[in-house]
Amino acid sequence: MGHMENREETAALVGACVLLIGDEILSGRTRDANLSYIAKHLNDMGIQVREARIVPDVEAVIVDAINDARARFDYVFTTGGIGPTHDDITADAVAKAFGVSIDYHPEAMAILERHYKETGNEFTSARKRMARMPDGALLIDNPVSKAPGFQIENVFVMAGIPIVMQTMLDSLSPRLKGGRTMLSRTLRAHIAEGQIAEPLGAIQAAFPDVSVGSYPFYTDDGYGAAIVMRCVDEARLEAAQARVSDLILSFGLELLPEDTGKAGG
Amino acid sequence: MGHMENREETAALVGACVLLIGDEILSGRTRDANLSYIAKHLNDMGIQVREARIVPDVEAVIVDAINDARARFDYVFTTGGIGPTHDDITADAVAKAFGVSIDYHPEAMAILERHYKETGNEFTSARKRMARMPDGALLIDNPVSKAPGFQIENVFVMAGIPIVMQTMLDSLSPRLKGGRTMLSRTLRAHIAEGQIAEPLGAIQAAFPDVSVGSYPFYTDDGYGAAIVMRCVDEARLEAAQARVSDLILSFGLELLPEDTGKAGG
Repeated sequence: MGHMENREETAALVGACVLLIGDEILSGRTRDANLSYIAKHLNDMGIQVREARIVPDVEAVIVDAINDARARFDYVFTTGGIGPTHDDITADAVAKAFGVSIDYHPEAMAILERHYKETGNEFTSARKRMARMPDGALLIDNPVSKAPGFQIENVFVMAGIPIVMQTMLDSLSPRLKGGRTMLSRTLRAHIAEGQIAEPLGAIQAAFPDVSVGSYPFYTDDGYGAAIVMRCVDEARLEAAQARVSDLILSFGLELLPEDTGKAGG
Repeated sequence: MGHMENREETAALVGACVLLIGDEILSGRTRDANLSYIAKHLNDMGIQVREARIVPDVEAVIVDAINDARARFDYVFTTGGIGPTHDDITADAVAKAFGVSIDYHPEAMAILERHYKETGNEFTSARKRMARMPDGALLIDNPVSKAPGFQIENVFVMAGIPIVMQTMLDSLSPRLKGGRTMLSRTLRAHIAEGQIAEPLGAIQAAFPDVSVGSYPFYTDDGYGAAIVMRCVDEARLEAAQARVSDLILSFGLELLPEDTGKAGG
């Protein structure tokens, strides 16, 4: 699916891919905290995360993932691999993906030089590594720990530490152009998916512009399903919600309060 | 990178890819709970998760992701999209990826028929959907909610609900052939990555068979870094660990107890 084709298909929707870079998530040592934060933040801006990929600290794999993602999506956001140590190879991989050279970025060097002077720490050659950026990179401000992220074309390169990533996401957001905001409604009930699957499929068929998802859950209070409806048009979303609500109530069941979305997979 | 090439490069190592299927993780509504569990479980069996991908409930995207992953890795594990509702399209996508037909699997039909008879629930056509499997599929037992997962060649298709996924993973594990177990050691200290980056890079260069990763953290107790070393050879791992330990102590710092690996990204 090419970029332009994608745009035509989705009209006023804007899609993004998130690349989480780092062995530690793949080993199971660290549970990613960034994807859901990025997805919610972008969604509020009218940008939907359509795919995410978790790749190891292996340059060839990162290069391929960046080139695949930047061709298929409006925006690509990466996290991780931009620190001072030998395993921080994201900037080099991005430069390779774009086929451009990489060098010390004068503005990034100036920011770091000032920072280490102020904090009385040595501006080691390892720390200078954090100023290495692909030719043409535009800095992304990092108010927390100073070392900036960077943007090149539609790819935004951020830190992996959640608090730093979050401030970088705030810094870069004014550069993003969102589409229509995807609105959502969730209805939950102690209902088996198998009970409602057929009429729910009929509702989906009647509302092709609304995405209707069914997510089963098992909790201490029993089993059930969360029906999540998504649409850019509020009136259509409410019409679909009314149909799903009627369906659940027709089984003599109550609607449950919306969950926190923390459990499940 | 082809499959055979991959095997030669990695000698006795066995690699896997995890595909998390479902809009709800991409929207940020649900935070995935399955990847870290699968990664740890497989690692204990001598199988390393080398890549993970989170894809939406869109058939063409799932088909492409499965075909890419099954060619590049020894094993592929999918979670999600095998329930009774209209958005459960994983089985169809897997059949398309393998270019085989899909139909009601007799053994799966028998399991479900017995289950719904026992529980006094109707075996609706929606519930029968859960028995649809690609031609040649081998069932994966599901002691929790009965509806089985399935295997076709090197692809294992599991449920998305964590408790169900976990029992399926136990059920299928005897079919997996692990390689050497990747051992790991972690050392943590209140040290800035920039302080140790250069000597740490030298240790990595001296131990090419040990993967040395540096992961910065910010906690209420201050900042620091976790140095994670991984290797299949215990003696080499311990030698590398001793070098990193000496490096940290040379700064007059203490080693911290290992963290839970829950924070960060």
